[in-house]
Amino acid sequence: MSQFGWSWHLEWQSPCEFHGHLINRVIVDLKTQYQRVMVAELARFGKVLIIDGKIQSSVADEYIYHETLVHPLMLSVENPENVLILGGGEGATLREVLKHKTVKKATMVDIDQAVIDFAKQYLTEWHRGSFDDKRSRIIISDAKDYIEKTTESYDAIILDLTDPIKGNTSYKLYTKEFYEKIKSRLNKGGAMVTQATSPSFSLCVFSTIFNTLRQVFKLVSASIVYVPAFDGLWGFVYASDYVNPISLTKEQVNKRIKDRIEGELRFYDGETHSMIFNMPKDIRQYLANEKRVSTEENPIYVPA
Amino acid sequence: MSQFGWSWHLEWQSPCEFHGHLINRVIVDLKTQYQRVMVAELARFGKVLIIDGKIQSSVADEYIYHETLVHPLMLSVENPENVLILGGGEGATLREVLKHKTVKKATMVDIDQAVIDFAKQYLTEWHRGSFDDKRSRIIISDAKDYIEKTTESYDAIILDLTDPIKGNTSYKLYTKEFYEKIKSRLNKGGAMVTQATSPSFSLCVFSTIFNTLRQVFKLVSASIVYVPAFDGLWGFVYASDYVNPISLTKEQVNKRIKDRIEGELRFYDGETHSMIFNMPKDIRQYLANEKRVSTEENPIYVPA
Amino acid sequence: MSQFGWSWHLEWQSPCEFHGHLINRVIVDLKTQYQRVMVAELARFGKVLIIDGKIQSSVADEYIYHETLVHPLMLSVENPENVLILGGGEGATLREVLKHKTVKKATMVDIDQAVIDFAKQYLTEWHRGSFDDKRSRIIISDAKDYIEKTTESYDAIILDLTDPIKGNTSYKLYTKEFYEKIKSRLNKGGAMVTQATSPSFSLCVFSTIFNTLRQVFKLVSASIVYVPAFDGLWGFVYASDYVNPISLTKEQVNKRIKDRIEGELRFYDGETHSMIFNMPKDIRQYLANEKRVSTEENPIYVPA
Amino acid sequence: MSQFGWSWHLEWQSPCEFHGHLINRVIVDLKTQYQRVMVAELARFGKVLIIDGKIQSSVADEYIYHETLVHPLMLSVENPENVLILGGGEGATLREVLKHKTVKKATMVDIDQAVIDFAKQYLTEWHRGSFDDKRSRIIISDAKDYIEKTTESYDAIILDLTDPIKGNTSYKLYTKEFYEKIKSRLNKGGAMVTQATSPSFSLCVFSTIFNTLRQVFKLVSASIVYVPAFDGLWGFVYASDYVNPISLTKEQVNKRIKDRIEGELRFYDGETHSMIFNMPKDIRQYLANEKRVSTEENPIYVPA
Repeated sequence: MSQFGWSWHLEWQSPCEFHGHLINRVIVDLKTQYQRVMVAELARFGKVLIIDGKIQSSVADEYIYHETLVHPLMLSVENPENVLILGGGEGATLREVLKHKTVKKATMVDIDQAVIDFAKQYLTEWHRGSFDDKRSRIIISDAKDYIEKTTESYDAIILDLTDPIKGNTSYKLYTKEFYEKIKSRLNKGGAMVTQATSPSFSLCVFSTIFNTLRQVFKLVSASIVYVPAFDGLWGFVYASDYVNPISLTKEQVNKRIKDRIEGELRFYDGETHSMIFNMPKDIRQYLANEKRVSTEENPIYVPA
Repeated sequence: MSQFGWSWHLEWQSPCEFHGHLINRVIVDLKTQYQRVMVAELARFGKVLIIDGKIQSSVADEYIYHETLVHPLMLSVENPENVLILGGGEGATLREVLKHKTVKKATMVDIDQAVIDFAKQYLTEWHRGSFDDKRSRIIISDAKDYIEKTTESYDAIILDLTDPIKGNTSYKLYTKEFYEKIKSRLNKGGAMVTQATSPSFSLCVFSTIFNTLRQVFKLVSASIVYVPAFDGLWGFVYASDYVNPISLTKEQVNKRIKDRIEGELRFYDGETHSMIFNMPKDIRQYLANEKRVSTEENPIYVPA
Repeated sequence: MSQFGWSWHLEWQSPCEFHGHLINRVIVDLKTQYQRVMVAELARFGKVLIIDGKIQSSVADEYIYHETLVHPLMLSVENPENVLILGGGEGATLREVLKHKTVKKATMVDIDQAVIDFAKQYLTEWHRGSFDDKRSRIIISDAKDYIEKTTESYDAIILDLTDPIKGNTSYKLYTKEFYEKIKSRLNKGGAMVTQATSPSFSLCVFSTIFNTLRQVFKLVSASIVYVPAFDGLWGFVYASDYVNPISLTKEQVNKRIKDRIEGELRFYDGETHSMIFNMPKDIRQYLANEKRVSTEENPIYVPA
Repeated sequence: MSQFGWSWHLEWQSPCEFHGHLINRVIVDLKTQYQRVMVAELARFGKVLIIDGKIQSSVADEYIYHETLVHPLMLSVENPENVLILGGGEGATLREVLKHKTVKKATMVDIDQAVIDFAKQYLTEWHRGSFDDKRSRIIISDAKDYIEKTTESYDAIILDLTDPIKGNTSYKLYTKEFYEKIKSRLNKGGAMVTQATSPSFSLCVFSTIFNTLRQVFKLVSASIVYVPAFDGLWGFVYASDYVNPISLTKEQVNKRIKDRIEGELRFYDGETHSMIFNMPKDIRQYLANEKRVSTEENPIYVPA
């Protein structure tokens, strides 16, 4: 049984369920001021980033998450030149944004310089040099602070944030108040997207984010993908007063990819677009019935 | 920690990966002549059927699998009156077939009387009385034997079989030779479907089944769904010389459901149809490149 | 990997540690009024009794626990005729007591008739008919109630009780007050023993029981054995004003076994006696330094 | 559940059983030419050395193993001046040997310079400077080669070797042929000891080592201890033509410790000596019945 006598990453989805991943090698395991950060090589997924015991991203399937977060939004906007990313410390969201030839300036705001430095050193496969692109600007700041103070406005704003968790402050970045501030920083024709947690493990959070954005924006749509390393479905919500990715046809998506994107996409194209924006009946009905709105006073959290 | 000191179902997807499910209660745990059969109540999924250590079906999400197996096929056929199910011992596939008002006769062929008896006693939530429907006929026989000997022909044939595994005989039911026999038992206008294993854990088996059916039938298409209790994606392949579910529009699917189906569907409708028949770019390319054909001489197996 | 896709008993010793045992078969899994009771066949230990997620006893090594609980005490008493067992529902403690030819009456007091009935049906390997021995008397009662009300007195009293746990009432059976009542029910020359939890996982409980008994009795000694199914060491404390098992020599033990015991012992004899009553330096020093006394007002519990 | 979303060391004792240890931090995880070497901090045991997925030693209880290996042997020899250690790369066996004031020269032979260097850097708590003691001499060599070629002879030889495993060469160091060579390198009055694997998991290996040494030496005895980090019992066999630790009384052990040893022992003393050299009846009978002898032609292995 020697092949099993190793270290494993055990990730609990709830007190009743966990997934075990064989670790081939621990590359680094650090305690920063805020969190425990590990980079390891899993037998199934290869290199992964694990923060506080949760797989954040795997080299084997991060493209599913990052392409779905970035491209439907970017392609729905007419001519996205000035883009803002909140969060996204690994640099992969920035990498996908920079594939768009329209982009002149991409600003990434992350709270922790240490995370950026760590990513630069250990997560080359994620950022692939995007931090050094001439169009990139990295700002170390709290996302809420930044949005409240900046006078700049953007064509596209991408929220690549940690889940709303009781006890830290990220939950504020999923509220009506915050989305109103985001809206105020969007140019005419602009749009935003946020990762919206897992419809498999926190469906009510996904639907509440969806419903909260509907209170603030005229056009709101959602996509769902299956991410193996997350052990379930993952959701995204797109919002704008002007454009809606769901209105794009397969053909439009394929044409815009050809016209605007430099480099190959692995997951997203016209047919994928049809898959991820069509929702199964059970989840669709759940979303339709959602009445909750996340506010600073009454926020939503993922189950602890 | 007393809440954890319980029994768990640990299901290995490979030697490098497993999923742990807390068992609230073991309802029955038997060794039959062929296999170990357990019915248990899991904390996350409620009642499940576990055969030889693999979750076969959970009361919480079996509708995803069974609706996707049955309805795209049945709705693509003009007027399915005589239907054959190979396998499907729990009775849920039969249950979904019988929802179609066009059906006059539904024949289910399963290898083991003990399994049927077991299902009748322990899996009421699955069959819901379908074994006792006047249109149902249950035959205890090997599926291959039955197909070779029967003189009857069918409008729809549904293969709800265990995965092709080295060492047992089910692999023969995924070969070109077997599909040719199936084809010979289809009426004009008829179509077949087979469950096609997991694109997450055995993508090459899924693509080989797809490519094998393309050698036998003119019209072949595939759908993919995420089934939580299977811990990943699940695939289905539909084949016919006359009809193709992929050609149905959202509106057609919704109209035919309204016209032909008695009772509510929970997962499948027009929009779900669009989701499951549009495939993501990465899997689509893999399928397109598949050259293997499963034959009796050179069969395909799921990894042990 | 099919050999691993089974149910496992995972037993947490703390939030940081667990042991996984492959379950070959679940024989019965019941929820009684008080607890969840399972009998299963483990690959390593064979048949086991699991209560509320903790292995209570395995057919492979229960003799280690039961022989160590019973025989050092019984052999140290001059002529034990009337014996009281508190707890011990499986019937194995009773079985060992009845091996002593001196015994004329063995009274077993257990709180739950259902447990006795369950043991009679499912735990034959444990009781081996001891419930039906002419000398046996089974009383259904709370142990504390029984001791407070009985007017009978005993030559040996054996406490085979569940661990002291916060939130149930068993902790009262490990207090100075309770031991004083036990003492009042002992005949001249009589002695008592209690299981004393695990020196591996709750050393401070073991040492506190030891020190508490030293407040009540003149002669107190402890033994320690390794029980594989408990995943660590297990402790016992013997107390009396008249006799002390630790004073017996190897030769005396062997002689008394020969003279008094009918049937074979598998674990305990003179040399085993020397092993279990000699304590390693580290645990010995810990015991020597223990100052705590468990009282009804300030009781000791095993860590939850 | 965030406290569980971490990495765990899962150690399989057999295909049917494993133990899970929460890892607080991975300090280093390397692949050397021969093996995977990890130093990690476990929640329960603190710092541990893990080689090829097996815990070799934990800072919390390594003293149990190392004191039992070294001191009964050293104290039974009249005046051990020249000591040989085969294996023992962590330096803890050497550390214990050097506590004996009689020792003038301690030679440690290990196969891999990399292991020694690794120990020097990461395992300070184990060696505590023993590599730099003036009496120490470190030789990089295969143990068998060394014994065959050396012309030196020793008062005590300590075999602190990896278990005999099929497929590597360590099994040769547990054979009659090897023990004869060891004997030829012992001075008059000299004695040897070997670690003898786990009576819990490989009782037949323990008993075969015991019986093999009885073919070569006149006086052979065994001790058994429980080592928490090894999840079971561990065995040692001592052999000589002149002395036998089992003959030492408690009082003699305590006196010799006082006279000869510099520094404190945590586990071993006179009473511990009585515990570990008295064997329980079941294991004792197993040993008495052992007929196998491990030879180069017909060697014994631990189960894979």
